[in-house]
Amino acid sequence: MADTLHTPTDDLRDTMLAMGTRARTASAALAKAGRDGRTRAIQAMAEALSAAETEILAANAEDLEGGKAKGLSDAMMDRLALTPARVQSIANALRAVAELPDPVGSEIARWTVPSGLDIARVRTPLGVIGIIYEARPNVTADAAALCFRSGNAAILRAGSESLNSAIAIANALRTGLASAGLPEDAVQLVQTKDRAAVGHMLTGLNGNIDVIVPRGGKGLVARVQDEARVPVIGHLEGLCHTYVDGAAASQMAIDIVVNAKMRRTGICGSTETLLIDQAVAETLLPAIAAALADAGCALKGDDAARSIVPDMDVATEADWRTEYLAPIISVRVVDGVEGAIAHITEYGTSHTECIITENAATADRFINEIDAGIVIHNASTQYADGGEFGMGAEIGIATGRIHARGPVGAEQLTIFKYVVRGSGQTRP
Amino acid sequence: MADTLHTPTDDLRDTMLAMGTRARTASAALAKAGRDGRTRAIQAMAEALSAAETEILAANAEDLEGGKAKGLSDAMMDRLALTPARVQSIANALRAVAELPDPVGSEIARWTVPSGLDIARVRTPLGVIGIIYEARPNVTADAAALCFRSGNAAILRAGSESLNSAIAIANALRTGLASAGLPEDAVQLVQTKDRAAVGHMLTGLNGNIDVIVPRGGKGLVARVQDEARVPVIGHLEGLCHTYVDGAAASQMAIDIVVNAKMRRTGICGSTETLLIDQAVAETLLPAIAAALADAGCALKGDDAARSIVPDMDVATEADWRTEYLAPIISVRVVDGVEGAIAHITEYGTSHTECIITENAATADRFINEIDAGIVIHNASTQYADGGEFGMGAEIGIATGRIHARGPVGAEQLTIFKYVVRGSGQTRP
Repeated sequence: MADTLHTPTDDLRDTMLAMGTRARTASAALAKAGRDGRTRAIQAMAEALSAAETEILAANAEDLEGGKAKGLSDAMMDRLALTPARVQSIANALRAVAELPDPVGSEIARWTVPSGLDIARVRTPLGVIGIIYEARPNVTADAAALCFRSGNAAILRAGSESLNSAIAIANALRTGLASAGLPEDAVQLVQTKDRAAVGHMLTGLNGNIDVIVPRGGKGLVARVQDEARVPVIGHLEGLCHTYVDGAAASQMAIDIVVNAKMRRTGICGSTETLLIDQAVAETLLPAIAAALADAGCALKGDDAARSIVPDMDVATEADWRTEYLAPIISVRVVDGVEGAIAHITEYGTSHTECIITENAATADRFINEIDAGIVIHNASTQYADGGEFGMGAEIGIATGRIHARGPVGAEQLTIFKYVVRGSGQTRP
Repeated sequence: MADTLHTPTDDLRDTMLAMGTRARTASAALAKAGRDGRTRAIQAMAEALSAAETEILAANAEDLEGGKAKGLSDAMMDRLALTPARVQSIANALRAVAELPDPVGSEIARWTVPSGLDIARVRTPLGVIGIIYEARPNVTADAAALCFRSGNAAILRAGSESLNSAIAIANALRTGLASAGLPEDAVQLVQTKDRAAVGHMLTGLNGNIDVIVPRGGKGLVARVQDEARVPVIGHLEGLCHTYVDGAAASQMAIDIVVNAKMRRTGICGSTETLLIDQAVAETLLPAIAAALADAGCALKGDDAARSIVPDMDVATEADWRTEYLAPIISVRVVDGVEGAIAHITEYGTSHTECIITENAATADRFINEIDAGIVIHNASTQYADGGEFGMGAEIGIATGRIHARGPVGAEQLTIFKYVVRGSGQTRP
């Protein structure tokens, strides 16, 4: 068993700053370990996690008891619960990350300039990533492994409901790290439920956190975006739209809208608002609405939509701004692609936006003018996922405009440096 | 002449927020204008600037008078002063930016996934860039043009000493924009000397500034890094090192060190500290020191350096942390590349670091382990410049770890979106 993690002190600020310093030191060792060293470390973390199943389940039982006492909802309790199979599936997810290509050291570009200098842009780790998350205990391992795959150290802050589970998992990861000869402090978990710890992380721990990744509900992410003094990679809301154009293929429109809304309603890439071209609303909306209703979806429409499908509820201004994450969809009739772009520009959250049309020029216009991380033509918004994009794993979907957008995989957790090779050049 | 810019109101906050809203609207128009539209706009800005020479010089005369009354140093007055030739050279710099490739819309990568989706990562503008700068009036035009070349709107905050010049230049740019049929509000200049305006910009104007670029001295940049709630692309300090390895070619070492320190001492890429391997310090340091002294450079050394070249001043701990920006260099004898890396890791500012060696393995180790925007082997640190890197123009050198590092040109002022093209895919 590795050394235990730091113990909380009365002086939270000092504890947190010391974590930052240790993380920075560990991140340098990770960068030096090379691809193979990092791969071996992730594999060792997986083995140690597998081996610690008993300890992890015991810790999880404590969290479940606490959750019960706190009256957590069944959904929350389910998210919190670990089983032997779930622990092994977390370990398997680590093994899968170990197989992913390691982006560090890759040349993004290389060219020669007239002075004869050979200039290469080479991927490097970001450094230290702070991850703040809520109930799901698997995030502890998943996020740490993805940070590792790109040479970054991680400072993790788990939700208070899952803290015991997270400590047990982090201890296992650190045991694995130590057995692979890497510094344990490349993975550190905040050991207190004190919410002030989040505040310290958001100020960057004296420059020792390079980026914050929030994973959780709206309240958490809003606090992060509000207080963070370091860059944040993450998304606040996924209020995704599907626009059915006048030139859409009817059956494709029905199939995609139902899938985009109903495949899983609780994920950020699910469609929340259906926009339909007035040119086809009368002919196509009834069939789409019937298919949605058959799938168990409640509909809320604007006046034009309700004049075509009268048994919809009324959609108010608030509905255009609501990420339901539930089997509810708002429906608005718009004036062609221009109306769709205007609505999305006003209400979209830069996550994922979709157009269904057979008209290539209309699709191009939508693709060019919509400002979002992911713009989809003729496919379901539920494809907004790093795995579906071929990235292997993702730490989340980014909706900001800096550094990364869309699914954030190992490659997006890197930055670059310029390597300049000369032969004695002095600048005139 | 275009409409005049907004006039300051008593309520600075409202004025600033309104600027942000207008900038966001204008940025959408810029993105839609396409490459050719943006090129024509930059050309029109150049013509309008050329034509406004008289107005600009008159405004500059006011600034010069103000500067004289304020007792600005000769160096500051020179930086502030415009002449007919300088105005035309600013216009020519705009014409050069108009010739640069426009990165927006370029495909960075494109691949197909097993579901049949065709996924492309495509460059898009960042959106709205806030630029905060000091005395040099040319920044108003240079920075605005580079933002434009990548489809971004700009909110500019000039130094109070150059405000009249900046207003005249910004008015000319806006006239050019209007004549090219683009919204003038794509370039807005803060019209007040009130320093609170900077504070408003640093909070992001309700999400309407996507990134802040500070260009100026340490005080400005420190304030920006301290207060900014939006990402910052820029550098705090350029405390660059040149390390002369035991396996360095002697004459190359002498030439590069003198150039790296003395070509221009006031730029961020100039070398401030010379690190020399103890293996060659006795044989090589006297010649390097003599060449530096001949070039007019004062030397400050540690004990080991002074035991070899006794007529150096003493370098203290503070010297290792000082960006002189003057003909002064600190000198330290280190224990090989490991000692050099340790010193740079402790004192470097992630700007530009150089090794001089004929040993490829030593160079590789330095390149891999040094964490800086630019790592140079066998060439002068004074090459740290977007022009020398073939970028055509730069808005500055970034030393952060997020989004961009090293010289920041038009390409680094973009982000990307994913364009997903399907044929009706619904996710299983």
